[in-house]
Amino acid sequence: MTAYKDLTREELLAMKKDLELQYEDAKGKGLKLDMSRGKPSEEQLDMTMPMMDIFNSSCDMRDDQGVDTRNYGNLEGIWSARRLLGEMLGVAPEKVIVFGTASLSVMYDSISRSMTHGVMGSTPWCKLDKVKFLCPAPGYDRHFSITEHFGIEMITIPMTEEGPDMDLVEEYVKDPAVKGIWCVPMYTNPLGITYSEEVCRRMADLNPAAEDFRIYWDNAYCVHHLYDDEQDTLPEMLSMCEANGKKDMILEFASTSKISFAGAGISCIAASEGNLEWVKKSMTIQIISHDKINQLRHVRYFKDMDGIKEHMRKHAAIMRPKFEMVLETLERELGGLGIGSWTKPLGGYFISFDAMDGCAKAIVNKCKEAGVVLTGAGATFPYKKDPHDKNIRIAPSYPTMEELKLTAELFVLCVKLVSVEKLLGEI
Amino acid sequence: MTAYKDLTREELLAMKKDLELQYEDAKGKGLKLDMSRGKPSEEQLDMTMPMMDIFNSSCDMRDDQGVDTRNYGNLEGIWSARRLLGEMLGVAPEKVIVFGTASLSVMYDSISRSMTHGVMGSTPWCKLDKVKFLCPAPGYDRHFSITEHFGIEMITIPMTEEGPDMDLVEEYVKDPAVKGIWCVPMYTNPLGITYSEEVCRRMADLNPAAEDFRIYWDNAYCVHHLYDDEQDTLPEMLSMCEANGKKDMILEFASTSKISFAGAGISCIAASEGNLEWVKKSMTIQIISHDKINQLRHVRYFKDMDGIKEHMRKHAAIMRPKFEMVLETLERELGGLGIGSWTKPLGGYFISFDAMDGCAKAIVNKCKEAGVVLTGAGATFPYKKDPHDKNIRIAPSYPTMEELKLTAELFVLCVKLVSVEKLLGEI
Repeated sequence: MTAYKDLTREELLAMKKDLELQYEDAKGKGLKLDMSRGKPSEEQLDMTMPMMDIFNSSCDMRDDQGVDTRNYGNLEGIWSARRLLGEMLGVAPEKVIVFGTASLSVMYDSISRSMTHGVMGSTPWCKLDKVKFLCPAPGYDRHFSITEHFGIEMITIPMTEEGPDMDLVEEYVKDPAVKGIWCVPMYTNPLGITYSEEVCRRMADLNPAAEDFRIYWDNAYCVHHLYDDEQDTLPEMLSMCEANGKKDMILEFASTSKISFAGAGISCIAASEGNLEWVKKSMTIQIISHDKINQLRHVRYFKDMDGIKEHMRKHAAIMRPKFEMVLETLERELGGLGIGSWTKPLGGYFISFDAMDGCAKAIVNKCKEAGVVLTGAGATFPYKKDPHDKNIRIAPSYPTMEELKLTAELFVLCVKLVSVEKLLGEI
Repeated sequence: MTAYKDLTREELLAMKKDLELQYEDAKGKGLKLDMSRGKPSEEQLDMTMPMMDIFNSSCDMRDDQGVDTRNYGNLEGIWSARRLLGEMLGVAPEKVIVFGTASLSVMYDSISRSMTHGVMGSTPWCKLDKVKFLCPAPGYDRHFSITEHFGIEMITIPMTEEGPDMDLVEEYVKDPAVKGIWCVPMYTNPLGITYSEEVCRRMADLNPAAEDFRIYWDNAYCVHHLYDDEQDTLPEMLSMCEANGKKDMILEFASTSKISFAGAGISCIAASEGNLEWVKKSMTIQIISHDKINQLRHVRYFKDMDGIKEHMRKHAAIMRPKFEMVLETLERELGGLGIGSWTKPLGGYFISFDAMDGCAKAIVNKCKEAGVVLTGAGATFPYKKDPHDKNIRIAPSYPTMEELKLTAELFVLCVKLVSVEKLLGEI
């Protein structure tokens, strides 16, 4: 296998001709696939259908504390749901508030509330000249969309193999305008890596100039392992921050969107008492109570952490072959060519692919022309601008194995073709 | 029956002694009832339980357009749910976005969004020196809580028997700082009356100085009739505003909280295309999609407007005797005494009681001492301040008939006792 950069111009031109023929052929197949988001597959959703049997018209809809889940009340969510999600995050139920379907909304509302009301008594951010956020990138595009939506300046923090570059983070938090950092600490979106113990330790011991600085700890994939025997681990951050006397510095978010149903799960925030009081002050104005029936449905279905683990093993059985097939295709087709590198995650929803500099947009476009929509190149960076135009997020979950196989083949073909064009100076 | 004001001091003192004995007796009964909110009763919630049979694990969870309700997607809600709630409000489905469980959150988010992003391109309200809202009162306390939470100045608009005093409303909207008016137009909270055709006509033809002025039309009780033969009617306001060339001036809200389950219904906004685009601009950042499974559950259960009407007749059968019993008690015990007046609603959730000036707080306190919690006196006014301290909201829905009977008896007793004390100059 010769690296592309060592090929002569003639060899590249010949190769290009051949690749173009293959590409025309691929286009002719009439593919029509959307792989832009990390959506669970139909097979995964089917697997959770027994949850629909939990209730029928003769059920007692009271929780184990006697709360009628059908009526108004219980702003913080039913106790058993707080306990279940607390167990998942390794924190006590009293540190958890359970919300509706989407942790994204809980995060959005946190930022929105900070804009209009400040954080635990601080100046509302809309009254400040400048508010900045640290954005480890590549990262979760919807985090960046929230901060952009509220006019918050985003500072890109490069990701290392252990997590965000903590030297930079420690430096930047000295600026009192820096009010937060977005983190997906486990099986991170899109890299699939998990923050190292050392990164977590330094994160939990930050000394931000702003008293209203918060770590936005989006633990979206905390139970999303692909393997039984080889799993990443993450320290429990609330207690780590508390041990450093910084218990208010972190807000943790999670949901069951990729555990139960993507559009109909339950979500939560976990935080210190002070932070929860701050959340509730607005929440009690915003809503009487979230969907407690759905909370109880989840509790009765999963029962406890063992139930969640058991359920996640079934997800893994569906996800694992997809990840492995994509990785095998990347390795077989691109290994040694020097035109791309990729991560090999042990969990989560994504494989992150780095093309040669300046190639990501062109690759994504080529895939699209042939009928496969990938996440827009650049989407994983603040302002959708990948400074090197090289990162592409691959979301293998949604397509069937057959579709995914075709997609993976198309993808490596597009990578090759665009790389040749790049080396020929054509793009 | 002699009006209390015509009694001599001696007669009042004798009466007081007797009432105090009765009151001590009532306290001894150990009542423990919370009638502070308009909560559906257990009987009503039980009635809706067949909704829990709609889905089981072998169900097809696709809507009639093939959308898999279990997955992410469809920001605006599934089409059939938009159609169902549109039908309920008399507007086309494309004018409706379906949300999660709570219309209160939809309203809160509208105000919050206006604070940070303005309304359809206007200056964000947080950048303005002063923002004011018109608050017809007595009104819905949670509306007033939202505006108060965001530091919006509230201007009380007295209610007439036909709705808000429109002379005042027309005058106040000339002030460009006035950005909205809260309305519960049908079976209004707490009066139970419905805005007249004339009030609606004038409302739909307002000429506000502020281009971002909106009518917040909370149509919470649009199908909540108590009687089959005698029902209030309300014009469809979106088209009325549109006919006046003011289609962007109104945002309509509704939910099934008091149709299906109080904590687990579906909610919506209905508005012009421009307003919906404005809503979606933030909504697409805030959430991927609301609970479409619950939306489909509601669609399959109610099917159409006839299904909703049929269902509401069952609610009415439970609510009607409660309303009638309270009204009968008020009439029997207080009629002709000149110490109180009350509304006789044809629908909704409340009876509004006006005591003698300066007596409401004392009556509510007396009830509380005897074990019955009513809505706090003043809660129905901006800043929780009833200028005459006379309005009390009675919410007959939640208690059983037996409990309600005891409550009604206690209530009239407390009204009498406090009125006597008032006339004696003791309070």
